[in-house]
Amino acid sequence: MRNESNVNSYARQFPAIFESGEGSKITDVAGNKYLDFFCGAGALNYGHNNPRLKQALLSFLEKDAVVHCLDMNSAVKDRFLERFESIILQPRDLNYKVQFTGPTGTNAVEAAVKLARLATRRRKVISFTHSFHGMTATSLALSGSREEKHKVNPAQDVIFFPYDGFFGEGVDTMEYLEKMILTRGTGVELPAAIILETIQAEGGVNVASNKWLQDLRRFTRENEIVLIADDIQVGCGRAGYFFSFERAGIVPDIVLLSKSISGYGLPLSLLLMKPELDVWKPGEHNGTFRSNNMALCTATEALEFWKDNSQEKTTAQNAAIVKRQLEQLAEASEHVVAVRGTGMIWGLEFTSGAIARKISSNLFGKGMIIETCGNNEQVIKLLPALTIPEAELRTGLSMLAEEVLALDNSVIMEHNSLVA
Amino acid sequence: MRNESNVNSYARQFPAIFESGEGSKITDVAGNKYLDFFCGAGALNYGHNNPRLKQALLSFLEKDAVVHCLDMNSAVKDRFLERFESIILQPRDLNYKVQFTGPTGTNAVEAAVKLARLATRRRKVISFTHSFHGMTATSLALSGSREEKHKVNPAQDVIFFPYDGFFGEGVDTMEYLEKMILTRGTGVELPAAIILETIQAEGGVNVASNKWLQDLRRFTRENEIVLIADDIQVGCGRAGYFFSFERAGIVPDIVLLSKSISGYGLPLSLLLMKPELDVWKPGEHNGTFRSNNMALCTATEALEFWKDNSQEKTTAQNAAIVKRQLEQLAEASEHVVAVRGTGMIWGLEFTSGAIARKISSNLFGKGMIIETCGNNEQVIKLLPALTIPEAELRTGLSMLAEEVLALDNSVIMEHNSLVA
Amino acid sequence: MRNESNVNSYARQFPAIFESGEGSKITDVAGNKYLDFFCGAGALNYGHNNPRLKQALLSFLEKDAVVHCLDMNSAVKDRFLERFESIILQPRDLNYKVQFTGPTGTNAVEAAVKLARLATRRRKVISFTHSFHGMTATSLALSGSREEKHKVNPAQDVIFFPYDGFFGEGVDTMEYLEKMILTRGTGVELPAAIILETIQAEGGVNVASNKWLQDLRRFTRENEIVLIADDIQVGCGRAGYFFSFERAGIVPDIVLLSKSISGYGLPLSLLLMKPELDVWKPGEHNGTFRSNNMALCTATEALEFWKDNSQEKTTAQNAAIVKRQLEQLAEASEHVVAVRGTGMIWGLEFTSGAIARKISSNLFGKGMIIETCGNNEQVIKLLPALTIPEAELRTGLSMLAEEVLALDNSVIMEHNSLVA
Amino acid sequence: MRNESNVNSYARQFPAIFESGEGSKITDVAGNKYLDFFCGAGALNYGHNNPRLKQALLSFLEKDAVVHCLDMNSAVKDRFLERFESIILQPRDLNYKVQFTGPTGTNAVEAAVKLARLATRRRKVISFTHSFHGMTATSLALSGSREEKHKVNPAQDVIFFPYDGFFGEGVDTMEYLEKMILTRGTGVELPAAIILETIQAEGGVNVASNKWLQDLRRFTRENEIVLIADDIQVGCGRAGYFFSFERAGIVPDIVLLSKSISGYGLPLSLLLMKPELDVWKPGEHNGTFRSNNMALCTATEALEFWKDNSQEKTTAQNAAIVKRQLEQLAEASEHVVAVRGTGMIWGLEFTSGAIARKISSNLFGKGMIIETCGNNEQVIKLLPALTIPEAELRTGLSMLAEEVLALDNSVIMEHNSLVA
Repeated sequence: MRNESNVNSYARQFPAIFESGEGSKITDVAGNKYLDFFCGAGALNYGHNNPRLKQALLSFLEKDAVVHCLDMNSAVKDRFLERFESIILQPRDLNYKVQFTGPTGTNAVEAAVKLARLATRRRKVISFTHSFHGMTATSLALSGSREEKHKVNPAQDVIFFPYDGFFGEGVDTMEYLEKMILTRGTGVELPAAIILETIQAEGGVNVASNKWLQDLRRFTRENEIVLIADDIQVGCGRAGYFFSFERAGIVPDIVLLSKSISGYGLPLSLLLMKPELDVWKPGEHNGTFRSNNMALCTATEALEFWKDNSQEKTTAQNAAIVKRQLEQLAEASEHVVAVRGTGMIWGLEFTSGAIARKISSNLFGKGMIIETCGNNEQVIKLLPALTIPEAELRTGLSMLAEEVLALDNSVIMEHNSLVA
Repeated sequence: MRNESNVNSYARQFPAIFESGEGSKITDVAGNKYLDFFCGAGALNYGHNNPRLKQALLSFLEKDAVVHCLDMNSAVKDRFLERFESIILQPRDLNYKVQFTGPTGTNAVEAAVKLARLATRRRKVISFTHSFHGMTATSLALSGSREEKHKVNPAQDVIFFPYDGFFGEGVDTMEYLEKMILTRGTGVELPAAIILETIQAEGGVNVASNKWLQDLRRFTRENEIVLIADDIQVGCGRAGYFFSFERAGIVPDIVLLSKSISGYGLPLSLLLMKPELDVWKPGEHNGTFRSNNMALCTATEALEFWKDNSQEKTTAQNAAIVKRQLEQLAEASEHVVAVRGTGMIWGLEFTSGAIARKISSNLFGKGMIIETCGNNEQVIKLLPALTIPEAELRTGLSMLAEEVLALDNSVIMEHNSLVA
Repeated sequence: MRNESNVNSYARQFPAIFESGEGSKITDVAGNKYLDFFCGAGALNYGHNNPRLKQALLSFLEKDAVVHCLDMNSAVKDRFLERFESIILQPRDLNYKVQFTGPTGTNAVEAAVKLARLATRRRKVISFTHSFHGMTATSLALSGSREEKHKVNPAQDVIFFPYDGFFGEGVDTMEYLEKMILTRGTGVELPAAIILETIQAEGGVNVASNKWLQDLRRFTRENEIVLIADDIQVGCGRAGYFFSFERAGIVPDIVLLSKSISGYGLPLSLLLMKPELDVWKPGEHNGTFRSNNMALCTATEALEFWKDNSQEKTTAQNAAIVKRQLEQLAEASEHVVAVRGTGMIWGLEFTSGAIARKISSNLFGKGMIIETCGNNEQVIKLLPALTIPEAELRTGLSMLAEEVLALDNSVIMEHNSLVA
Repeated sequence: MRNESNVNSYARQFPAIFESGEGSKITDVAGNKYLDFFCGAGALNYGHNNPRLKQALLSFLEKDAVVHCLDMNSAVKDRFLERFESIILQPRDLNYKVQFTGPTGTNAVEAAVKLARLATRRRKVISFTHSFHGMTATSLALSGSREEKHKVNPAQDVIFFPYDGFFGEGVDTMEYLEKMILTRGTGVELPAAIILETIQAEGGVNVASNKWLQDLRRFTRENEIVLIADDIQVGCGRAGYFFSFERAGIVPDIVLLSKSISGYGLPLSLLLMKPELDVWKPGEHNGTFRSNNMALCTATEALEFWKDNSQEKTTAQNAAIVKRQLEQLAEASEHVVAVRGTGMIWGLEFTSGAIARKISSNLFGKGMIIETCGNNEQVIKLLPALTIPEAELRTGLSMLAEEVLALDNSVIMEHNSLVA
């Protein structure tokens, strides 16, 4: 766009100029409408411009509420903290202190690692194959999926271990991790922290099993390693529960939330920490936009979705629909390698990245936004809004199915030859 | 506040719960009003809730404009880029490409350093004594003022050089820098970049001279070192011109803007780069909240302040008032060591941090928000809104003067003994 | 000893003041004689003061040959290089260029890693669990067995992988290594080099299988990773052949020799490199004592041991004796966990380090020098001279057997209680 | 030479095959004799094959004394430590504990830095412009003169400061260092250690003034920074006294000796440390050839040179001769820029490296060995044996003078054109 940098990527994949959005629909300046199965990479779990949140925001603006005040206390922050505790933490029996880091996920990751190092006085951090945690120096070093960037941003003090399933079904990668860390003389020191996505979203919608997650929690607890759950993409209800780790019944030491926490696509990040980990000195991690009050305004309103278990129920119903359709599709198409997912995050893995990218591209042409992920972009990732009406959900699934089934070898070979 | 982390700092310094704001006035939940000489650490150059920006935002929300779309193109981004070019870049004869990094200053710093390393294939970056650039790993490593944090976040690949004036009047620190870099065998390699604040805000309102800035620009140009101007706090008009470096007539290779670029206190960051430096591959630096459309909406409107030179004139007039008053105060008080500043950023340096902190604390008690800075917090930093009415400016200056003149040694000694 | 540093270790384990040595016998100042099954940690493969080497040295000294000349050419170096090529390299069909690094093993390791990085323009180096490569910064970083030292000497740019057998019999650790390196997005970059001990001596006499070594060689060749064989302790005939890797029929890209290369216990190190890897610029790695001419004098003479295969035959015969005796011992004693070894390097693993240390200590009291190794010092390591007479070999084995068989639980429990 | 690596450097500069040496004379295989003003880069302070040392060595060998025993105690080590204490330490009122590191200077540097970090629990080490400390990773990182190598061996945790005189006569670089370290917020943390050559030998024979050395000692003492004197090249009498720092009356915390400590060109290194710094745990720094007993044998004998002050007197007389001649030469030749030195280390700086290299090369052709140093190799470095007969010293000086005076511009320009 005009004089924008080459660095843009989604703008190339979905080349339109977008103007307005409502729920799961987005409209470009030419008036074309798109069904959104991408939801701002998980930042719009409640769809675009949710009316309840919008009303809260309008009223906030109209009364000239304080918009920006760094980490100072504000009425809106006070209310958010009160509601977050009563709606989210208490019913789940969770005891966390809250830090508002700079309003991006990567900033929360940076803060978490710094805190774990301060608290344990150790340096190393373990991350997993195909992980993604962000683009500032620490986060990028922790991102296995971006290993090609480690040349310019060395992954020092980071050790990569195989994620659940990396070696296939028969191999328990937690056994490997335990033995490498606990045996004396392996060269692998006791780390400060292990950073975990319970579901690797960018990495290809890889879903860790409950048992593996429980083993990891037991191991880190026993060895006093800080377990950091990066729930930036898969938290806030995306995985079926408010926190993605609820399905495994585990409680991490640090939890990172961002993306959908404001509910309106506004920048905000939270770091939840067990009280005993709060070894920060005042100002030891700061940042101008720590508490983005407009985001806190909508975030408070968005918590209402979690006052009871209705959202969880809806997600479970929708998840069943998606699962069934994708599994049928997998059976019907020779190009589909695997179906993975839970809640409202699903991946359809194809035999190649070229196929997945072509499907995404074709669907965009037909009015649907859906992205690819995985180490070779071979996975179509479905991230519909949690609030999507069932009819729209089914429409999207049908559009996807039609596109997949239309694939035939000649088309693909042709495409490959163009790509190569 | 409730279960917030110990990390909070401003909340301790200014312990109120703020509710609303208008221009240079801010009100807490108890109805107390405060005169704001802090302006969100420079993020509110146009004051709180500027009505013109507010109207734009309300209308943006009401028409359900797209709020969040990662780096995809949007109507509001398109308009911002067009206006930024025509109002800001073209009249100044500047040719920059624009990158929207994650919406925090520190993210822009991280991106700039990564880009400089990619473009030059060198590793080292030079930063200056008493600098501050942010809290993520690269930025913190570049922050001389936070050297105590380097234990947990090592300042690898960073070399610190003395800022202008560090050794007092007689010593030209640029000569030192040139000789250490250009002589063979000093151990100091040719760096990828030098990162510069033309005025060190956190560092104590240290104003680099025009000559020093020009020498630095000449030196970096001749040796193909990327000169990065961190204009996050002192850009957007704070230093008298839109860009802080305009006063020296220099053109950096990369310019970083954040804080006041949205004009409304909303998170947004821009990295401006000379076109030949745009070596990014698509997606090589990304982030969820890159183009925060609500911030772009107000940012576009805020550019209107710069359509002509009226804002520059106002700032010059106000600067003259501040300068005169502070210099009088310095003469009158034995506790004031120095007065430094330009535009609407001024520092009043005291003989100790204890004194400066006490003044800030007393003024808060009397309804004024003003912060301390400098390596021992010995400097009172004045950051009134660029749009502050002259009467309010004079009120604030009077309150400050009164407080300084009320100081007597017994009070201070008592305070010191409490602090020690 | 007097004002020596606390850092001494062997001096504590074997607390005598040694005066003279001949073959496998060493005498202390009090006239006590010791049978030497330690051989200077592998630096005395031909025993103490081998008469042929001694004569060469006396004649060298008497004629005032040049003792020290840095890397300049000398008659003795010329002769060594000629003999090394004709006796060692040519018969084995090996084509290596020779570098004399500083005369210590760790210096050769440092040079090898630097060279691999220069040649490949990559940074990472892979090392294995329980490895040991030396004490200077790079070597220590590569030493898994010293992970507790990584706190003060960070193992940056080093990735540790499981050595052959680390996970027990059923698991092929080369599969793990291959998949972690070759899969995109694991976080593990393509390394510059892999550094290998074919037998981990300090690590506990762990013998890699021929198949594993062959797989490693195939993998590194196919992926253009420099394979460095650290033959410092297990080369020079220790493992049965002149080079330890001959048994697997593989040819590393770089080979490091030290310890026994001089044959007389004099400091000398060699780095052998495939000619295409010789990307050094003159002086790019230097050091005062590179070619220690007295060491070269005895080294040349020691090559005569390898003019035919008689030494290999002797070692094979002796190895068979050791193997048989140790295996009998293992069967007879419940305290022995495993027997491992080849050539003249054997390990007897006990159930605890306390037992192994006690055996070593008792044997010293009875006139035998034998050390412990392994991550918990639980392994007795047998390193008799290659030239040990069969009678002395059998004496040593009997002394060891007697000591092991004399162990009874009460003794051990008592010892443990003292240690604890 | 044959299949030696390209890495050789002196072998290129002095292309002969050397066979024997006596005192200051060295003979090649063709029977050519050379006057040695290089002395193995300072490793042969007592000349080649000093007869007294040779006799000690022959007798050591003949009686089959133990040649190699790692760090175990030996009769020869016992005697050396006793003599070192009584001849060297006690008369100088020095209280040091002794560590035998691996037998190379660079190994002593590595050990010293590790020890300083362990003792202070800090990371950073300060080194100076144009310094040289060796080629293993830590030492190379500390070598300002090899900054071009830092690309492959990053100088992490090292901060370079200007050596005495770096900015010319008027500037006291210690003031700079003090202010940068002691001021809060400069980005320069309190270091673990400062490593110092009192005379930079490789760096161009730069002689730090006594005052500067004293200021550095005061500063490091006051701030509990470990002061490491790298006396590897300029210790053992080279600078006039046994320790180079005696001239300034200072006592470093750690002293490193190597090169001439054996007196016979044999590898040996000593680390002397103040007793309170001996925080090593047993084995925390080790190495196979720690106490090279043959080197200890000659080292003990070489201490006899220091039983009284006769060697110091001789050096002072010879130094006066050298100084006078070089100063005359400097006046007579327009190509000489400066004369620097003390004791038996002198530098003659020329207007270019091309000239200095040509002089060295021409002198080699005429039977004299003398090397160049400095960041552009622009300095001829004189390192005659401390024991050189006055006549040979004068011969060498005359040969040098003749060569310098024979220079005329046409020759030089021609040479430059060939070089360019």
